[in-house]
Amino acid sequence: MNFLEERIVKDGVVKEGNVLKVDSFLNHQMDVKLLDKMGQAFYKKFAEKQVTKILTIETSGIAIACAAARYFDVPVVFAKKSKSVNLDGDLYTAEVESFTHKNKNTVIVSKKFLSPDDRILLIDDFLANGCALQGLISIVKDAGAQVVGIGIGVEKGFQVGGRMIRNLGYDLLSLAIVDGMDAGTGEIFFREQGEI
Amino acid sequence: MNFLEERIVKDGVVKEGNVLKVDSFLNHQMDVKLLDKMGQAFYKKFAEKQVTKILTIETSGIAIACAAARYFDVPVVFAKKSKSVNLDGDLYTAEVESFTHKNKNTVIVSKKFLSPDDRILLIDDFLANGCALQGLISIVKDAGAQVVGIGIGVEKGFQVGGRMIRNLGYDLLSLAIVDGMDAGTGEIFFREQGEI
Repeated sequence: MNFLEERIVKDGVVKEGNVLKVDSFLNHQMDVKLLDKMGQAFYKKFAEKQVTKILTIETSGIAIACAAARYFDVPVVFAKKSKSVNLDGDLYTAEVESFTHKNKNTVIVSKKFLSPDDRILLIDDFLANGCALQGLISIVKDAGAQVVGIGIGVEKGFQVGGRMIRNLGYDLLSLAIVDGMDAGTGEIFFREQGEI
Repeated sequence: MNFLEERIVKDGVVKEGNVLKVDSFLNHQMDVKLLDKMGQAFYKKFAEKQVTKILTIETSGIAIACAAARYFDVPVVFAKKSKSVNLDGDLYTAEVESFTHKNKNTVIVSKKFLSPDDRILLIDDFLANGCALQGLISIVKDAGAQVVGIGIGVEKGFQVGGRMIRNLGYDLLSLAIVDGMDAGTGEIFFREQGEI
């Protein structure tokens, strides 16, 4: 097991309905040393991709994206989920559905923060059905920029998102891929991956 | 001028209605080196306060809080703004009004992440009318914990939040206090502060 899988086994909680709670270290309370290791792992994988910018989506992706950005030495842009009165000017938008919140959001990025020569690394904490990533990919395409890699904390391998994104040819690294969970025993089954 | 004031003068944009846009480096696109300097400044100010945890509120406070947490070597907890299906168990809640979005939110923190022996540093990007901070302070009090310091990126000195928080006796450091702006000329007037 890698460092994130070990932490999930130690502190993650399996709930009925294929819910994996990682709120004690990743998306409510956050362990910044763990975030740093995640950022370093993404750098190890994508260091040669000439990344110019990291794009994530609020909320939980922001901390991981910032940890990674320290290694890549590039800015982070986070997509916003609803129109704010402070977000004026030309906007890229995409509709995305949230599995967690069971609603639809418009994802928004100011046009001035993405340009056609940008080489974008997408980062998010979770990948389930892939709707958030589809929205981000759509926005990068609208900008004429290129997605050169995708870094995810925890992928729910039993949902379609990861397979779909890989089938589309994207270079996707999920630090932990959960292929199954047992809410009765609390067991978590990870997909075998090479060393990260 | 300190490093944040200099950056605001260089890249901030003044809009009608006392709006200061810092979205190119602080709350849409983020400069992680700047965040690191902010975190370091908060550590310089509050290093002796035996901080055990940093509490912030989604969204823009998260990146600054994580940058500071690296220096303090403590976890970050971010308060959430709406009830998610993944947030179960006992919750601390407070009602807060958003100046930017002109709406009310319930701010939520899981009880398991705050304990009576916690010494909390509150961090947020902006302080205007202080409603978000009041919500966080209320939650820390509910937990029986102590607010030992408050670190803010940009305070709008012409709104009531900063004065109110200081009058209540809290140790508040705002890295930049904007006492006035001129949307016509783009000028920004900072309150004189000692070295940060």
